[in-house]
Amino acid sequence: MTGPALKIKIQVYCGEEIAMGPGKADLLDAIASEGSISAAGRKLKMSYRRCWMLVDVMNRCWTMPVVATSTEGARLTDFGVDLLTRYRALQAAAQAGGAGRWPALEELLRAEPLPVQPAD
Amino acid sequence: MTGPALKIKIQVYCGEEIAMGPGKADLLDAIASEGSISAAGRKLKMSYRRCWMLVDVMNRCWTMPVVATSTEGARLTDFGVDLLTRYRALQAAAQAGGAGRWPALEELLRAEPLPVQPAD
Repeated sequence: MTGPALKIKIQVYCGEEIAMGPGKADLLDAIASEGSISAAGRKLKMSYRRCWMLVDVMNRCWTMPVVATSTEGARLTDFGVDLLTRYRALQAAAQAGGAGRWPALEELLRAEPLPVQPAD
Repeated sequence: MTGPALKIKIQVYCGEEIAMGPGKADLLDAIASEGSISAAGRKLKMSYRRCWMLVDVMNRCWTMPVVATSTEGARLTDFGVDLLTRYRALQAAAQAGGAGRWPALEELLRAEPLPVQPAD
């Protein structure tokens, strides 16, 4: 099984760092639902260290902290909730904008790639 | 210097392979302007082998060949020209669709990330 054939990735850069993207947005969703960075990492099959680094990048790139951590766990700040909503709205708007142009590409696409030809 | 803060990447999958994306589209532009895969690779600072593999993926994913090679070099087929035009139209439409939602994110973004804090 394969996913959808069209993927639109929205990346927001702050200098050389990616302040927000599909993976970071999914991590914020997981932190909101799981209540800690470690539980979010288990849900997304990412290491705690990797999750923590993504959170750190976000907290350094935006004008206010996105995730707040305490001894009890982690949660999105009000700012983080708002940011995630705005990012999801941008994703949806880009997807909607591109949707009308997608059939013209899809009709040229094979269902599966041809096999790789062995080298002579 | 850094590039634009918003990047919208359109990836078209065929099964598990990426049939078209920003890098492949740029490679097609370079083949069209340079007239060979090796010259396109030099222009894009990519190895011949890497360029050839990207072309091979495209030729296997779409219903007709995208790039035709001969002893004289390489060129886009009429199909490839049409495909590239359709992909660029999808890119532009997604960008235009997202544009209205971008200021709401941009206003929350720092000009540069805060520095990484040294570990305690």
